[in-house]
Amino acid sequence: MSPERVFELLERVRSGALDPKAAVAELGNLPFEDLGYARVDHHRALRQGLPEVILGQGKTAEQIVGIARSLLAAGQNVLVTRLAPEAAPAVLAALPELEHDALARTALALQTPPPLVPGGKVAVVTAGTSDLPVAEEALVTLRAAGVPAERVYDVGVAGLHRLLDRVKALREARALIVVAGMEGALPSVIGGLVAAPVVAVPTSTGYGAAFEGLTALLGMLTSCASGVTVVNIDNGFGAAMAVLRLVRAPTSETP
Amino acid sequence: MSPERVFELLERVRSGALDPKAAVAELGNLPFEDLGYARVDHHRALRQGLPEVILGQGKTAEQIVGIARSLLAAGQNVLVTRLAPEAAPAVLAALPELEHDALARTALALQTPPPLVPGGKVAVVTAGTSDLPVAEEALVTLRAAGVPAERVYDVGVAGLHRLLDRVKALREARALIVVAGMEGALPSVIGGLVAAPVVAVPTSTGYGAAFEGLTALLGMLTSCASGVTVVNIDNGFGAAMAVLRLVRAPTSETP
Amino acid sequence: MSPERVFELLERVRSGALDPKAAVAELGNLPFEDLGYARVDHHRALRQGLPEVILGQGKTAEQIVGIARSLLAAGQNVLVTRLAPEAAPAVLAALPELEHDALARTALALQTPPPLVPGGKVAVVTAGTSDLPVAEEALVTLRAAGVPAERVYDVGVAGLHRLLDRVKALREARALIVVAGMEGALPSVIGGLVAAPVVAVPTSTGYGAAFEGLTALLGMLTSCASGVTVVNIDNGFGAAMAVLRLVRAPTSETP
Amino acid sequence: MSPERVFELLERVRSGALDPKAAVAELGNLPFEDLGYARVDHHRALRQGLPEVILGQGKTAEQIVGIARSLLAAGQNVLVTRLAPEAAPAVLAALPELEHDALARTALALQTPPPLVPGGKVAVVTAGTSDLPVAEEALVTLRAAGVPAERVYDVGVAGLHRLLDRVKALREARALIVVAGMEGALPSVIGGLVAAPVVAVPTSTGYGAAFEGLTALLGMLTSCASGVTVVNIDNGFGAAMAVLRLVRAPTSETP
Amino acid sequence: MSPERVFELLERVRSGALDPKAAVAELGNLPFEDLGYARVDHHRALRQGLPEVILGQGKTAEQIVGIARSLLAAGQNVLVTRLAPEAAPAVLAALPELEHDALARTALALQTPPPLVPGGKVAVVTAGTSDLPVAEEALVTLRAAGVPAERVYDVGVAGLHRLLDRVKALREARALIVVAGMEGALPSVIGGLVAAPVVAVPTSTGYGAAFEGLTALLGMLTSCASGVTVVNIDNGFGAAMAVLRLVRAPTSETP
Amino acid sequence: MSPERVFELLERVRSGALDPKAAVAELGNLPFEDLGYARVDHHRALRQGLPEVILGQGKTAEQIVGIARSLLAAGQNVLVTRLAPEAAPAVLAALPELEHDALARTALALQTPPPLVPGGKVAVVTAGTSDLPVAEEALVTLRAAGVPAERVYDVGVAGLHRLLDRVKALREARALIVVAGMEGALPSVIGGLVAAPVVAVPTSTGYGAAFEGLTALLGMLTSCASGVTVVNIDNGFGAAMAVLRLVRAPTSETP
Amino acid sequence: MSPERVFELLERVRSGALDPKAAVAELGNLPFEDLGYARVDHHRALRQGLPEVILGQGKTAEQIVGIARSLLAAGQNVLVTRLAPEAAPAVLAALPELEHDALARTALALQTPPPLVPGGKVAVVTAGTSDLPVAEEALVTLRAAGVPAERVYDVGVAGLHRLLDRVKALREARALIVVAGMEGALPSVIGGLVAAPVVAVPTSTGYGAAFEGLTALLGMLTSCASGVTVVNIDNGFGAAMAVLRLVRAPTSETP
Amino acid sequence: MSPERVFELLERVRSGALDPKAAVAELGNLPFEDLGYARVDHHRALRQGLPEVILGQGKTAEQIVGIARSLLAAGQNVLVTRLAPEAAPAVLAALPELEHDALARTALALQTPPPLVPGGKVAVVTAGTSDLPVAEEALVTLRAAGVPAERVYDVGVAGLHRLLDRVKALREARALIVVAGMEGALPSVIGGLVAAPVVAVPTSTGYGAAFEGLTALLGMLTSCASGVTVVNIDNGFGAAMAVLRLVRAPTSETP
Repeated sequence: MSPERVFELLERVRSGALDPKAAVAELGNLPFEDLGYARVDHHRALRQGLPEVILGQGKTAEQIVGIARSLLAAGQNVLVTRLAPEAAPAVLAALPELEHDALARTALALQTPPPLVPGGKVAVVTAGTSDLPVAEEALVTLRAAGVPAERVYDVGVAGLHRLLDRVKALREARALIVVAGMEGALPSVIGGLVAAPVVAVPTSTGYGAAFEGLTALLGMLTSCASGVTVVNIDNGFGAAMAVLRLVRAPTSETP
Repeated sequence: MSPERVFELLERVRSGALDPKAAVAELGNLPFEDLGYARVDHHRALRQGLPEVILGQGKTAEQIVGIARSLLAAGQNVLVTRLAPEAAPAVLAALPELEHDALARTALALQTPPPLVPGGKVAVVTAGTSDLPVAEEALVTLRAAGVPAERVYDVGVAGLHRLLDRVKALREARALIVVAGMEGALPSVIGGLVAAPVVAVPTSTGYGAAFEGLTALLGMLTSCASGVTVVNIDNGFGAAMAVLRLVRAPTSETP
Repeated sequence: MSPERVFELLERVRSGALDPKAAVAELGNLPFEDLGYARVDHHRALRQGLPEVILGQGKTAEQIVGIARSLLAAGQNVLVTRLAPEAAPAVLAALPELEHDALARTALALQTPPPLVPGGKVAVVTAGTSDLPVAEEALVTLRAAGVPAERVYDVGVAGLHRLLDRVKALREARALIVVAGMEGALPSVIGGLVAAPVVAVPTSTGYGAAFEGLTALLGMLTSCASGVTVVNIDNGFGAAMAVLRLVRAPTSETP
Repeated sequence: MSPERVFELLERVRSGALDPKAAVAELGNLPFEDLGYARVDHHRALRQGLPEVILGQGKTAEQIVGIARSLLAAGQNVLVTRLAPEAAPAVLAALPELEHDALARTALALQTPPPLVPGGKVAVVTAGTSDLPVAEEALVTLRAAGVPAERVYDVGVAGLHRLLDRVKALREARALIVVAGMEGALPSVIGGLVAAPVVAVPTSTGYGAAFEGLTALLGMLTSCASGVTVVNIDNGFGAAMAVLRLVRAPTSETP
Repeated sequence: MSPERVFELLERVRSGALDPKAAVAELGNLPFEDLGYARVDHHRALRQGLPEVILGQGKTAEQIVGIARSLLAAGQNVLVTRLAPEAAPAVLAALPELEHDALARTALALQTPPPLVPGGKVAVVTAGTSDLPVAEEALVTLRAAGVPAERVYDVGVAGLHRLLDRVKALREARALIVVAGMEGALPSVIGGLVAAPVVAVPTSTGYGAAFEGLTALLGMLTSCASGVTVVNIDNGFGAAMAVLRLVRAPTSETP
Repeated sequence: MSPERVFELLERVRSGALDPKAAVAELGNLPFEDLGYARVDHHRALRQGLPEVILGQGKTAEQIVGIARSLLAAGQNVLVTRLAPEAAPAVLAALPELEHDALARTALALQTPPPLVPGGKVAVVTAGTSDLPVAEEALVTLRAAGVPAERVYDVGVAGLHRLLDRVKALREARALIVVAGMEGALPSVIGGLVAAPVVAVPTSTGYGAAFEGLTALLGMLTSCASGVTVVNIDNGFGAAMAVLRLVRAPTSETP
Repeated sequence: MSPERVFELLERVRSGALDPKAAVAELGNLPFEDLGYARVDHHRALRQGLPEVILGQGKTAEQIVGIARSLLAAGQNVLVTRLAPEAAPAVLAALPELEHDALARTALALQTPPPLVPGGKVAVVTAGTSDLPVAEEALVTLRAAGVPAERVYDVGVAGLHRLLDRVKALREARALIVVAGMEGALPSVIGGLVAAPVVAVPTSTGYGAAFEGLTALLGMLTSCASGVTVVNIDNGFGAAMAVLRLVRAPTSETP
Repeated sequence: MSPERVFELLERVRSGALDPKAAVAELGNLPFEDLGYARVDHHRALRQGLPEVILGQGKTAEQIVGIARSLLAAGQNVLVTRLAPEAAPAVLAALPELEHDALARTALALQTPPPLVPGGKVAVVTAGTSDLPVAEEALVTLRAAGVPAERVYDVGVAGLHRLLDRVKALREARALIVVAGMEGALPSVIGGLVAAPVVAVPTSTGYGAAFEGLTALLGMLTSCASGVTVVNIDNGFGAAMAVLRLVRAPTSETP
């Protein structure tokens, strides 16, 4: 049972639309599976059209396998992010249905392919080659959610002509995920070129004063292009989720 | 002439849809007014349906008046943000058509009221009373752009019952701007309650380890609710612009 | 001889309650065992009802074994914390009486089981799976001190319904240790739900702007729930000790 | 209605102890007074035995007066903290029933004196004269909550003899609030001298490398005395609230 | 006597080109004027073709006047930088020969106009209006040194078309001083457009995550355009001096 | 096609010097080779007289080899910087024409030796032995660009006599790259001794308060010698590129 | 009674050299005067040959006057440091026996002139004019303690010849206090020139990347001249006290 | 030839005490041995009575061996500090005359034992076991310089009685090196107990908010005990050198 459902229930009780008894009955049926180290929610995936996501970082291979197995057994799609190279072999050996993407550090099992989200493509843009792992994590997440996307790679601002060469793709996108490290200037330039939503993702590439992505993060937050939003350093998954919130938004209005 | 126009022109030349001569003619007509300290773009407002925005901070009252006067003379709407209390009297005396909002630190002149943006309300949410100036800046900006909005104030996470009392308004919003200082936890809780886009704005309220908004900023960036995006500290204007990008997005697809 | 004893002695001399000669005699009997690299205090454990604690970090396996052996020989209970995976085999091989907890990174020998501390359970709460090692360190420490505790795991604020599901356990606890990484918002929400003491422990989980626990630490320090206190990043042991100070406090008043 | 009440209600409904209808009736009566900029909770004070607390910082004098007036009209006690010298005259002129403490930067009105909390005194300890405002804020808060307290002032660690002179008072306290700036070493020394709970409060005194309290804060968090907990810089109020949680704790067990 | 002279002397003694006696005689004639709070070097200006520069910040009006008067009496040109608005009236009243530039915060007296440095113009570029004071400080310094310069103002990267409009001026410059605050992206874009030396100056404009210029500074240091160099935040004077080193360099080769 | 060419083209169209048709034709011929993970520009090297540079950090050995092979096949010179010791064997095995410098962490292939840049030597100066890798990276880059250079090593400011011993070499240099870690004081002293351009490179040597080069970086930025410019920590390549901009500058004036 | 006395007493009791009764009697006579906000120690000055020092910062004028009056009444010398310009008039009006030094921000009353400390002069060295207040604070403190000192001012490392001109004074000093802001390089150079103790004092002069003295502080801590020690930013008083410890050291050995 | 010698020479020339010709002759005989990567000074050891010190960190084993061999061949004593465990075997195999101390990470060869420095012992004090490597580095350095020293270990402030037990040793020391990590409070307490010089050394022990020694460093710099000086984190060598400057100081006065 999602939080939305809990509060919706409560609202309906308050407005008189729902019999309190029925409400109480539902409250007793929370469909968690308690694994000791995690409490797995078997209904979320079905509700949101997104695979359940397991953040691999900070979990042992055993924990990842345990959670994924519980979800798969319930018929859900599963996405593992930040799957460390050390943990990957054990996880993949235990769960051969997972498709591994070493560059994106993800493992994905789509038991039920997601329906395609209409409304156009999302552009995933990178400044340089070392931003690829983060961009690919965003792409895998979008694919798992059924959102079509297009790569616009290696268009850093110091080579403005390469960016210029791809401006058509940028301007046709319904939303843009812009991935950059170093000084993180790319979202500022792109934010000035397009009217669509821009989600900026700083990456931890670079060295010295790049401070593992902090400089790119701060640069993006103070972007002179207004209306650019930012997610955590290297958080390609989070950027994709932010896009998912907005491409889904209209459908949530449908009666 | 906007950058979009420049590149669109170039594209049309490349595709053969436009005669190069005509393109060159247009390139010679950039409608800037050069004030010495600033180069004012008289066409942007008409194109984007948003008043021209003057960031008051870092400018003298004279500079603000000069830019605003140039824009007003061209028939545009004008929004001044971060208008310091010291600069406000001189600006308002020189330009009585500006409507001052002391709490939001804005001055606004809508010579042409913007058309109402359809699709539902945006919720502007605050954790506490001291977050109001930032929230009100977002509200003035949304109003200037014709986006309807609703206040959901004083619902900080330490008083979960107050938040609970407003959950209906939160869930009905098409997008949410969530303004909070201190530890910045509110977007995490709200991000878990709604499926719509959440733009988090950290504020510089608090003291000591709040570090003038840095703690709230970092907290929001590492939010455990996925898909929350973040703008700069105290940047109510930027949050409203981010929302504007997404509520406008569908209309940009129209042929 | 504890510092308390030294100053108590001095006080009794000053008040006339103790003969100075006797005081001086006691002062000559400090029961340290000097190992060169450490001066082991054989009386503290007996006085405080807690095993002597050896912080494993920063010590060689040889030093840990040396100190532990000295304490065990004196009949004391021993708790080793932050026992690095590299050092553990050598330590455990040398001292088979130690019980190792790999997740909590502790080794414990209870030669004299501690008496149970009355007054109810302490809740040890985590936001996510990767907070477990820190929570388990707190639990081992509480166990070593005879304080009963209950796990309330995986109740992060982005899934408010899971937290809601456990609110009874939270409200019945006499004190709560709340362990969270990322933005560290959990203590704010829990601090608003319960009246009992809340000790917040930031963890170094997360990446990027989590800055190895700094963000959670700052978030907890600026919690909008008043009266929440904080210990060092990943310091499950310290949180348990803080709880021990308060659950013991009443008994120290007994004549 | 407090959050505790909301969830308690819910729990009683779930366990069958409460008729759902009655619960729903109560849910419709949330006693907030909505002032626009704040939503005032008129029941909290009566429930918790503590005056409603208004954080003065970040609020205008008008907002402070508005909230305080609403609370006073409902018969509640009121405590204003961090009342800026600039705002104080207007607040005090509007509400003469408030008692101002300029050093502590508080204003207090106890319409119903709180009952005395039994169980002994709390020691409020300072390292130096410039820590006084923070310590006095803690003392006013404790007084407002009915907790007896004793000052132990000017006992910084560089003058160990002055600390030694007061060790009796320290050891008799049921809990200690230790306020210090600069390097913040006092809680480490006191934490080694007493077994009772120690809440450390860093202050923003000092200059240069004191970094406005950051150094004291970090020093207290890494204290070599185990079980010391820490609150935000200059947060005397928060330290008093933490103590209130623990001195109240036993009474919450009473059926 | 400059350090160059001292070491040159030494070199000539070592090579046998200079009689040691003569060298020693010169060493006894250091032409400092000791004002107590400063030791004024009367020969430097003549040697370097630059006015003596007095950093106004950190000096009292009296000290500034004292040093300037000593230099003027010796017939030198004088440039005061960072002349605080509070100190300016007293300084200007005492020394009416100084020409004040309130925007640049400079005061300049050119008793001997510097000869024009050949080789083309230096472009001084700004991203926005609030970068003007720093740019103007650079311009006054260049003027004092006889280096011709051209303003290219208000060409921030979020409005790429305005930058495009001035690309000719950028590409014709022999060196560029690029002044920008916020995320500091302008030098990256310009560094990719021109082959000439680019000296980037971060400014303390902006708010929140701009951290008073730190973000721009770090962004410039990690610029993806190679060969961009950086000076201190707001250091327009330093940027001009860096340019002076390179426009002078060829002449120092002349025998 | 370089950005310069794009804009030059545009300028010529605007001025009437170029037929728009011809311009459009050229625009269709961007000579990128798209490798998927990178878009290689085959013309840049020929234009700038510098090998194409591949930043090895953040790229896999496969990516480095792929880009380098594409460039070499097009007849270009190639410089790989920050080639990690782990990646080097695979890269060198695949491309035996690369000359490896383990200390500088570079790999270089000069298929067409660059013409010697006239105008004198550049001095590459270090404070200590541990600054060598960074200095050598600068030297390899200068060599690849045909700029003659001279080593002035191990002349840290605490041994002023060693610096004094080399002052002649310093003063004869047309530009200086000054590499130092720890407190980064060397550029300040050298900046006071010479009139030529000084590019300071902080290094990440040292420990503790050196903070991996941050201290040296900040020290160099606040150098009391005016006109010193700074590049990123350990960025020997960037310093060489900055020098290249200035030694090339005069030739760009030639008609 | 000083801590030394307390422990000395204790030692003598332990060794049998003192009768415990006598010791206890002494323990009852601690000569504090308790002013409520401070506990004034009337014996310290006589013991240490130094005036009692009152840190003015963080104290009200009333508190400063109260403490000073108590000390003066007991016949002691008094030194007030960091006396804010706002507080000075009230303090000086109340206590006309205080001699004010506005530059050093001190007030001093030497009722009993200190005996001259033998062994040579201490050099107080500054890099620039804005370091004077800190240097003068050190000088006033040394004078109050009877230590002869010599000023060596305005010898920053970018003008090595001015430093060279004063090398004799530097080398004759028995100890050196070296005061510098900006990059803080002066102690490194001086530390390499002299064998005597060097106490480095960073100052908060400078702007931007000087970070209010942090850069100088870090630079001095990582000085490449070994054996340089550092005190807090702007802490001229502390540097003088450090020197006092070492010039006194030999006399403390005398039986 | 040391810098002192160079300037002394210059002084003697200036005063007429030395014939310039003789001076020039000496200037031609700088006894460096240039190894390419380092310039070894063969006279310094003899002058200062200290072995030449090689900072092992940042140097390859080959470089360390090269420098050490050159020094040993010239008959000097050699001390290698921060000799990494990886580099040690190669260094020790090449130079069997080096005595390795694995805990202190040093290698020492005393070909000429240093004369004993008179005047009493230096106390090297630690707070805990993990501070030992740094303390031992100080001890090896003192031994290499002939300064007698005494260990006072494991006397952290949370166990005041252990400190009290060693107060005699502390008070008899002519100077104290106080090594502590975590909050770094020990120098504050000791600084209040003794009148002799106290050099504080922060260590990088601890975790979380200890920030690898930064917290201890800042705590020591803001110590409330006046006159405590500080060296870099983990810099036991530097602390010993600071002590060496002061124990040597009197002898430099001898005619």
